[in-house]
Amino acid sequence: MNYLLSIAYDGSGFCGWQRLPNARTVQGVIEQALTKMLRETITIDGAGRTDAGVHALNQTATFQTTKPITAEQLAYALNHFLPSDISIEKVNAAADDFHARYSAVGKRYGYKLFISPVQRPFQERYESRIKEALDEGRVREAMCYFCGRHDFKALMASGSHVKDTIRTISKFELDRQGDSWYFGIEGDGFLYHMVRIIIGTLIDIGRGRIEPNQVPMIIESGQRHMAKRTAPANGLYLENVFYDV
Amino acid sequence: MNYLLSIAYDGSGFCGWQRLPNARTVQGVIEQALTKMLRETITIDGAGRTDAGVHALNQTATFQTTKPITAEQLAYALNHFLPSDISIEKVNAAADDFHARYSAVGKRYGYKLFISPVQRPFQERYESRIKEALDEGRVREAMCYFCGRHDFKALMASGSHVKDTIRTISKFELDRQGDSWYFGIEGDGFLYHMVRIIIGTLIDIGRGRIEPNQVPMIIESGQRHMAKRTAPANGLYLENVFYDV
Repeated sequence: MNYLLSIAYDGSGFCGWQRLPNARTVQGVIEQALTKMLRETITIDGAGRTDAGVHALNQTATFQTTKPITAEQLAYALNHFLPSDISIEKVNAAADDFHARYSAVGKRYGYKLFISPVQRPFQERYESRIKEALDEGRVREAMCYFCGRHDFKALMASGSHVKDTIRTISKFELDRQGDSWYFGIEGDGFLYHMVRIIIGTLIDIGRGRIEPNQVPMIIESGQRHMAKRTAPANGLYLENVFYDV
Repeated sequence: MNYLLSIAYDGSGFCGWQRLPNARTVQGVIEQALTKMLRETITIDGAGRTDAGVHALNQTATFQTTKPITAEQLAYALNHFLPSDISIEKVNAAADDFHARYSAVGKRYGYKLFISPVQRPFQERYESRIKEALDEGRVREAMCYFCGRHDFKALMASGSHVKDTIRTISKFELDRQGDSWYFGIEGDGFLYHMVRIIIGTLIDIGRGRIEPNQVPMIIESGQRHMAKRTAPANGLYLENVFYDV
């Protein structure tokens, strides 16, 4: 049987998603729990490999088991076996050829930041802190330029080996409440570090270091060094993975 | 010069307040920062010794320095030197005989819990989780019995060596929003683990394991084993320390 897991996790206690030999990772912890529960070696395929510190509200993963167990039993037992910083939000039985990553048609990420010269202990794990104010008008103008279908090579971490770097951003929204900024971004896929590099570039635009209308030139350059620093991991949330139903 | 610090911290990354040789503690981290900044050995006296995992919105501590520095300079520099899970909310110059603990006339603690059969990764560090529902009417009735002046010996961690165990609870309030429960409790002082043992007892009352009107008998017994288990540290917040101005 093929199952689809919907998973939430606080990324601050993990060295990212991907299984590693000597580090606590989300994939590793879930595989251990499933292997123990089902008494057979289970490997899971996640929709995306989140980095250390990145959170997820609804990451997805598929896996196969030969054991007779229902989706409801799996959800209940898995939550029992998992630590408190991971939860299984839902388990669905899936068609045999359904794959969390290859079947996905899009994703949504959220990015949270707040403006404060001084640390705020209860927010720091879950939002990234910026010391100086950002100009909202400039940030909103720049967001427009990222939308649509582009070659996003300049917004990909250098060293990535992806060949096809064309992606479509179909939605990019900002909800600002005083010093708290929330960005929501949706697209058919995202390159490695792409969301964090876009946010890092927006931060520099909001501070006045570069002009909003330079964004098209940055994208067209195809050069990573033209874009700005990668925003920190702790503000990033994998919010949803979309499938054609 | 004698200074009073108002301190907030996320307790989840600390082995409590009190300085320890080989553990990360709030007092230890602040003393290190002050000693480095002021280039003289600084020790600080906290109003209360919070346990591992307990948070503070406004813990206080006093210390003396011979160095010429203003309260504003101290706040600014100390926040710069401190890690992101501690912040200095305020620094005040204090009279020479003012002491964070001995001058205090009362304290306020908050306790947060939520009801959920399944873990919620983004709440678990900051609220304690209860799997089964609690009866609000029973809990509110029991809260009344704790208010006022009593010998709280039965609600003190066994092994404590405090002689005078009489304390006055002057306010005890509950704000319930669906599955989220917030308790606020004020008094002239609290014995070791007293708030957490009171909450643990309320939880058992809310679940129907003991009757609300047994609380006076539990208090009068003076026996720790009559009260219930100590509620977990992660839901507890030292919210305020009161002084006569």
